[in-house]
Amino acid sequence: MAGMEALERVVAADLGGTRTAVAVVGSDGTFLSKLKYPAEKASPQASVEQLVELAGEALAAASLGWEQIGAAGVAVPGIYFPETGRAWAPNLWGRDQIPLREWLAGRLPVAAVIDSDRSAYVLGEQWLGVAQGLEDVVFLAVGTGIGAGIITGGRLCRGAGGIAGAAGWFALDPRYQEIYGQMGCFEAEAAGPAVARRAAAAGLWGLSPEAVATRARLGDRTARAVLEETASWLAMGVANIVSLLNPQMVVLGGGLMQIGDMLLATIRSQVLRWAQPQAARQVRIELSRLGEDAGLLGAARLALLKGD
Amino acid sequence: MAGMEALERVVAADLGGTRTAVAVVGSDGTFLSKLKYPAEKASPQASVEQLVELAGEALAAASLGWEQIGAAGVAVPGIYFPETGRAWAPNLWGRDQIPLREWLAGRLPVAAVIDSDRSAYVLGEQWLGVAQGLEDVVFLAVGTGIGAGIITGGRLCRGAGGIAGAAGWFALDPRYQEIYGQMGCFEAEAAGPAVARRAAAAGLWGLSPEAVATRARLGDRTARAVLEETASWLAMGVANIVSLLNPQMVVLGGGLMQIGDMLLATIRSQVLRWAQPQAARQVRIELSRLGEDAGLLGAARLALLKGD
Repeated sequence: MAGMEALERVVAADLGGTRTAVAVVGSDGTFLSKLKYPAEKASPQASVEQLVELAGEALAAASLGWEQIGAAGVAVPGIYFPETGRAWAPNLWGRDQIPLREWLAGRLPVAAVIDSDRSAYVLGEQWLGVAQGLEDVVFLAVGTGIGAGIITGGRLCRGAGGIAGAAGWFALDPRYQEIYGQMGCFEAEAAGPAVARRAAAAGLWGLSPEAVATRARLGDRTARAVLEETASWLAMGVANIVSLLNPQMVVLGGGLMQIGDMLLATIRSQVLRWAQPQAARQVRIELSRLGEDAGLLGAARLALLKGD
Repeated sequence: MAGMEALERVVAADLGGTRTAVAVVGSDGTFLSKLKYPAEKASPQASVEQLVELAGEALAAASLGWEQIGAAGVAVPGIYFPETGRAWAPNLWGRDQIPLREWLAGRLPVAAVIDSDRSAYVLGEQWLGVAQGLEDVVFLAVGTGIGAGIITGGRLCRGAGGIAGAAGWFALDPRYQEIYGQMGCFEAEAAGPAVARRAAAAGLWGLSPEAVATRARLGDRTARAVLEETASWLAMGVANIVSLLNPQMVVLGGGLMQIGDMLLATIRSQVLRWAQPQAARQVRIELSRLGEDAGLLGAARLALLKGD
């Protein structure tokens, strides 16, 4: 019947440095099941084995078998190299690349489409999130690190070596510091740990970003200043993305954006100060509404698009 | 006969704030004729009229008529909006957009393909210059202003509003200055006028960048320091492009790069310090070898590709 297409179903996996999330997702974006476990980090092999086992569990929870699944999408917390099928994710698998495509081909009964979590986030937001249907959109993930997923002209931008989006390495201050060489200037100044470090330097010891935000909401001036300064750095990084890529939207996500409501106004106003004026007026800067589901939905989208 | 294709010929125009260049170019990249005149700036209409007249002259110089021309490519020194056919180039036409596509359709007997000069530069370099055949390449034009032409995954990146590549607006120093609001932080610190300004502040009054470079070559320490500081800012901007887009090559062009040999070593070494380490090791940073022809060849490429 015209307009009536069978619901396709895929397995989606979002691997992280701390947790492994696996789901069965329909081609309309419905979760048929969803599981989340602490990441198995005994070895890269054990990590992949966990993914395979959780996929089986997720299928059972959805009362489905592999024969009803079209493909699997897998988001990795690092870099995926499509030419070699290898992946690099130091927070999960240590320093060495692993032959992920080969391992999954041997363990999964369906084809796996693999990409970086950054790519999955932006695909998820573009498919079903706040950036739905946009052709030029950047997802800036700000957690313990900073990275960007980029769609320009409707297509994922991966770069020559698959590592496009390393926005955490933005140079934002000519006064170079040692720490910039370890993680990048933008990441050193604006990721989650920078909030705690800045708070400690201001006398607020041992507070998480959430705790700093709680104090700021209660009117603590020091806590407010810490968040304000962090938001100013974030604005510089967002502005650079806006000037270079002229996106319709920048979506802010990742762990630190759980307190994004305390950062967004400053980011928006300071992007207007730094970025190319027309691009700054055109762009919308929004918080992710999919939260942790962005990665799973993006992985599902990868599987549904099958690498197109 | 197999492998024997007729030579296609196109008219290429590279409009600038100070000069208008027009050429007849073969599909193999040969110049069949090439003209350069001071830009007619009496009015936008007069500017377009000059383009049309020079195209006629260029055809006559090549002993060709319009009936032997497939299309025209036009590079504008500003922004082209493909949805409306309008263009904005304040240094040439003043503050208002002009209906360039409509005007050209009424005055040229062939179809015109229009794009920004930034897009033309990167297309030219990718077609016949130092970036020949690369799929991920950025042309950074550093003259009186700073702008970037971007090809990712083999396609021009134009952004949602056609103004991608406004790298001159990169935020590179949290110590905001008034001048950054007029032209962007990166442009204020690293374009041609910044060299003269920095030299004057160091006691070298009234010198062009070329004159500063001449002094530096003769061993003048102040002149060397001025170029070193400028190159350091350029490195931060290039590094940000490298981290975000992971290109195979960044091509440096524009007026200031006529002294690029005095800047390149510092740019290369400091990009390694700032940018994402893998992307920094992969990227090649080269000076344009096409010089002023990059815009004309890019405009010709636009016409030959006919907007594909």
